[in-house]
Amino acid sequence: MNDKGEYSYQEIRLARAALTRLFEPSDLVGFALVQHAGPVMALRIATGQDKAGGEDEGAVREVLEQAGAASGWGGLAESRERWGTRKKDLAPERDLEVIRRLGGGFVIPEDTEWPAALADLGLTEPLALWVRSAGPGFPQQHRCISIVGSRDATSYGAGVTGELAYSLVQRGFTVISGGAYGIDAHAHRSALAAASGFAESGGHIPTIAVMAGGLDRFYPAGNEDLLRAVASQGALIAEVPPGSNPTRYRFLQRNRIIAALSAVTVVVEARWRSGALNTAHHANMLSREVGAVPGSVHSANSAGCHRLLREGAAVCVTDAGDVAELAGEMGTSLVPEAEGSRAMHDGLSVEDLLLLDALPVVTFTTVDKLTSVAGLSLPSVLSGLGRLDAVGLAESTSGTWRKKKT
Amino acid sequence: MNDKGEYSYQEIRLARAALTRLFEPSDLVGFALVQHAGPVMALRIATGQDKAGGEDEGAVREVLEQAGAASGWGGLAESRERWGTRKKDLAPERDLEVIRRLGGGFVIPEDTEWPAALADLGLTEPLALWVRSAGPGFPQQHRCISIVGSRDATSYGAGVTGELAYSLVQRGFTVISGGAYGIDAHAHRSALAAASGFAESGGHIPTIAVMAGGLDRFYPAGNEDLLRAVASQGALIAEVPPGSNPTRYRFLQRNRIIAALSAVTVVVEARWRSGALNTAHHANMLSREVGAVPGSVHSANSAGCHRLLREGAAVCVTDAGDVAELAGEMGTSLVPEAEGSRAMHDGLSVEDLLLLDALPVVTFTTVDKLTSVAGLSLPSVLSGLGRLDAVGLAESTSGTWRKKKT
Repeated sequence: MNDKGEYSYQEIRLARAALTRLFEPSDLVGFALVQHAGPVMALRIATGQDKAGGEDEGAVREVLEQAGAASGWGGLAESRERWGTRKKDLAPERDLEVIRRLGGGFVIPEDTEWPAALADLGLTEPLALWVRSAGPGFPQQHRCISIVGSRDATSYGAGVTGELAYSLVQRGFTVISGGAYGIDAHAHRSALAAASGFAESGGHIPTIAVMAGGLDRFYPAGNEDLLRAVASQGALIAEVPPGSNPTRYRFLQRNRIIAALSAVTVVVEARWRSGALNTAHHANMLSREVGAVPGSVHSANSAGCHRLLREGAAVCVTDAGDVAELAGEMGTSLVPEAEGSRAMHDGLSVEDLLLLDALPVVTFTTVDKLTSVAGLSLPSVLSGLGRLDAVGLAESTSGTWRKKKT
Repeated sequence: MNDKGEYSYQEIRLARAALTRLFEPSDLVGFALVQHAGPVMALRIATGQDKAGGEDEGAVREVLEQAGAASGWGGLAESRERWGTRKKDLAPERDLEVIRRLGGGFVIPEDTEWPAALADLGLTEPLALWVRSAGPGFPQQHRCISIVGSRDATSYGAGVTGELAYSLVQRGFTVISGGAYGIDAHAHRSALAAASGFAESGGHIPTIAVMAGGLDRFYPAGNEDLLRAVASQGALIAEVPPGSNPTRYRFLQRNRIIAALSAVTVVVEARWRSGALNTAHHANMLSREVGAVPGSVHSANSAGCHRLLREGAAVCVTDAGDVAELAGEMGTSLVPEAEGSRAMHDGLSVEDLLLLDALPVVTFTTVDKLTSVAGLSLPSVLSGLGRLDAVGLAESTSGTWRKKKT
């Protein structure tokens, strides 16, 4: 603390490192405390070294009681008891040393590289991020796409995920996911593959895995090689310090970070009840775009996607172009139609369509006959035949007409 | 015509029969003429036997010129020329006799069994309907579902169509389609199959095919047996008289009738450009519900469905329950969730979730250890363990605890 009562960057950094162990993710009372008292004083208050300071005491206490009451986290006294059980585990210097030895780092909101998009989380904005990354900083939100889905992906889901991730990275996007088995793993793997293909031209981080536990170990163990590759060519991030277990609660909270970092969250496969829907829900709450990949109505692994579509909580996406368009990429909405060119009879007038319908395919017919079959006046038939002839839809011989084979 | 200048039902009926041959479907000038002058006078004016009558002349002429100008059908003079080419084909008594000999009938808006839903078409409401049917009248719109799609259905599309049609007929709905190959045929066939299964209990018309050509022949020829069965157990309808060819223009106009008759139009499979999308478009314009069945993003036959979903022109439907819900069937939205029961940990408080996460699976642990791992106060852990024990999620021995295997 300097003469003006301001804390140094190092004091703030150390306090935030400690707070990530003391507070569970989105502990609303703890997070409110940090917002109202700052990280250094929040740590002192939370650990009982200090009261809510001086003249602010009443105001801070009221805010905390409200946060606790509204959220179910309990009041300040109850929260202090909760935090007190972890006081003895606090060793922020050791945690920072651990992440440093792993080649990683620790990013706090006071850093310029802090992802601005996380501020949209409001009171549940992470207190800090533990990072293992080779790259420089984080990509901007509008260049990030989350791809999430079931752990038990089908071959269909795996295939679509691979196509999406590969193509999105090639378009310059960063693919964010949760590092789990199934869709997550396919997304990371294809993103890395796409980046290795054009390492010289790109330079952007191809993929980020947002982990629910500490970054000192790779979870799930079966993804160790993949996550190691993500750490060295992309980034692993977590809001809990090294040594933290990936609990179910932390998995659910982790999803809010995936949603917040991305312009679009794409659910490729999800059962009727699935953690991926939780991520989609967070994205909806944050007014981020959500895409859902359709699949067979007979596949339980697509039921969650169809549910999102049906409830209007997601937009139907079928390829990387659709996703890029949701992310606001310029020009993608002008992509030509997916199948075939415009039919030749598009743009014909009603009368010319009637005339075209009336033309026989094999034998030639007279103009007089055409007026009756098409139900058109003689002038209309004559001028119409001229137009159909001009666009290659009709042909004539000796004043008789038929449809031209195209 | 009686003393008051009113025409008899028979005069009106005969005039409408003639007009269905004289005017193409949705001939806006012709249809406007009928609306403003009535069918009998409209026929006389259209065939040049009479002018727009007396004092109304200026008003009728103005309406017709406006209808023609706005629609591209041309003015009254031009339209008269168009109609004139077909005057020599008019033989309404013969047409009515043909349909009678086929066991069919002719329904006009003046009949009580005229489907009220068609009035939503406004100026393009059909002038009359030619019918081949065994059943009594038409089902009400809220009990009708259209199922439409590609002629070149995949086995997936055929399967889903079959499931939907069968189940909807079992729920008491009438399945409407266009009698074509592919999705249409599967829809009619399954609807008939469902009806044959419980003929005693039902009694409603299982399926209606809306045809683009005259009902004196079955088109396409390969569907003859099917369409014959539809005529005898359901209904075939057309707005054009016997002997009329099914032209492309008439196919497109036919789609507006399919859409108008139904509460919901379901597109099962459609390519990026498909006639089924035209039906969906008509339904949108009529404020009818549109459902689209999702499928593989790799299937060109689902691209049109995904396009509808993406553009917000359709709701995602995966089974008959979804469709019935769109049709406003009571209670279907209360159908239980599709997969599994609610997870046992649903409804737990944040603190109890944290505690559940902290419980080891194999070995038992102490309450003291749990306070630290879960980050909860001693009272919270003790009361939480009690709650988890009560719902069968935790078990204890000698004051130590672990997760209970479920």
